[in-house]
Amino acid sequence: MADRKKIIAVIGQGSECTPEIDSLAEEVGFEIASRGAVLICGGLYGVMESACRGAKKAGGLTIGILPSSDKTDANPYVDLPIATGMSEARNVIIVRTADAVIAVGGFYGTLSEIAYALAFDKPMVGLRTWDIDANIGRADSADAAVKQSFELIAGGR
Amino acid sequence: MADRKKIIAVIGQGSECTPEIDSLAEEVGFEIASRGAVLICGGLYGVMESACRGAKKAGGLTIGILPSSDKTDANPYVDLPIATGMSEARNVIIVRTADAVIAVGGFYGTLSEIAYALAFDKPMVGLRTWDIDANIGRADSADAAVKQSFELIAGGR
Amino acid sequence: MADRKKIIAVIGQGSECTPEIDSLAEEVGFEIASRGAVLICGGLYGVMESACRGAKKAGGLTIGILPSSDKTDANPYVDLPIATGMSEARNVIIVRTADAVIAVGGFYGTLSEIAYALAFDKPMVGLRTWDIDANIGRADSADAAVKQSFELIAGGR
Amino acid sequence: MADRKKIIAVIGQGSECTPEIDSLAEEVGFEIASRGAVLICGGLYGVMESACRGAKKAGGLTIGILPSSDKTDANPYVDLPIATGMSEARNVIIVRTADAVIAVGGFYGTLSEIAYALAFDKPMVGLRTWDIDANIGRADSADAAVKQSFELIAGGR
Repeated sequence: MADRKKIIAVIGQGSECTPEIDSLAEEVGFEIASRGAVLICGGLYGVMESACRGAKKAGGLTIGILPSSDKTDANPYVDLPIATGMSEARNVIIVRTADAVIAVGGFYGTLSEIAYALAFDKPMVGLRTWDIDANIGRADSADAAVKQSFELIAGGR
Repeated sequence: MADRKKIIAVIGQGSECTPEIDSLAEEVGFEIASRGAVLICGGLYGVMESACRGAKKAGGLTIGILPSSDKTDANPYVDLPIATGMSEARNVIIVRTADAVIAVGGFYGTLSEIAYALAFDKPMVGLRTWDIDANIGRADSADAAVKQSFELIAGGR
Repeated sequence: MADRKKIIAVIGQGSECTPEIDSLAEEVGFEIASRGAVLICGGLYGVMESACRGAKKAGGLTIGILPSSDKTDANPYVDLPIATGMSEARNVIIVRTADAVIAVGGFYGTLSEIAYALAFDKPMVGLRTWDIDANIGRADSADAAVKQSFELIAGGR
Repeated sequence: MADRKKIIAVIGQGSECTPEIDSLAEEVGFEIASRGAVLICGGLYGVMESACRGAKKAGGLTIGILPSSDKTDANPYVDLPIATGMSEARNVIIVRTADAVIAVGGFYGTLSEIAYALAFDKPMVGLRTWDIDANIGRADSADAAVKQSFELIAGGR
């Protein structure tokens, strides 16, 4: 088990990304995969799709924890769609499974995931997202966010 | 179905209430039951217990959506303990079921429930809690919070 | 807590009841409420509706653990609709919460609930249902099924 | 999406395998991976561990949908532990996600998964397991069970 890959969650809105958020999410996904970690997300569109696309460009592996019962709802860059059929309760599973969580933008659904990450004491880094708590690490670039998340994991948080 | 009772959720921390928060939660529960609504909560201690105690003083009915598989984990003022065995994923059920949500104090777990209430567009009123979004109604007393929640329901939000 | 009411689950198909099954389910609901217990079910139609209708005729209280996110999906005899949004995963909650489970007819969904009842070592009685295990109590009438379920609870199973 | 790998679930008891069941489960896992599919299971011990061990011997990928919140509960042959924190409700996720389900032995927990597979109309093959329904494909060897499950998927069931 010692050599299991780290799993990093990318969370953010499922639709209507600005080009800036879209670009940040793709870079975050790329960096996660480049550093050898697996990407986990909600499996849908918007930030989730951009992050998965980035991870695939770097040859990574992507997991999508879907709210629906239908695997074909996953975006095309998800390698492993997990069909929960549990709607928004699946947010808990994404956060529970992640070794660290990176939020890119995001509205209320993302806020629920940030809250769970804080409640479960998971390393949590934010990019252009809810800046509401001192335990959310701040980063100004995709590279810095991913770097910080790996440092937090290594530091035992 | 037209005469089903309204169900109001009370959310807040599960432990270490200050006397002020404890007192507010009990008053909120009392007011909810006095107005003929059913109280739903997470079924445990802290704010949840105080709110249930208040509701029972007013002769109300209380539902506790428990994270564990064991009904005896419910506080003594819960009439109907619902054992989910789904840990924090049960937060979604509390919010989904409520016609309105009132937060009293609260930390990260409460934040996840506030986020779900906002995501599901449920009437949401806060007392001494996370003041992070314009869609969280503000109130300064238990009575005002409950009154506001009923007005928001009646107003079709 | 000593005087909390017992909660009995009625499980069975959600559609296309035969008149016999419909009648049995209504009698089971009536008997449960007559003996002072709360009825819990999946909140939908078929056996669930018939059982709730019976319980209301006896002045009982009914809880419906719904698969959907929409409380208005409940049948009209459900007093307290609990909206899980978790589709068939809500079957676990029905069984976990019940002090005993009575199956009336039923197909594969009912089989999943019978399996959970057996796995959780809950008192389980069947009427015209899956006869696949010695731990499923057999009954030939609604009255006998409800009586047996109360005896199993009292006997500490 | 056309080239996503098939995902096959292996279900069965989590403890006290007989040597025969243990050996069958390992062969099933080996055959699944040899045919290029991903193995999904409950992530724990017994049949789940044996199946994962077999899949790893064939160089396959293994997913464990854990009941607990702790990824380290996974058996050592799980590549991707998914921590649900939802106890037995996670059984639904395993079946929803699978393109086909193979049961090897198993008690009541396995029965709940078989029931879900039948309810969701998933291809379902059984080896030394609950023989209770005509929609459960029968097989007498690990190789035949895996072969049959691929045929059922290809046949559009």
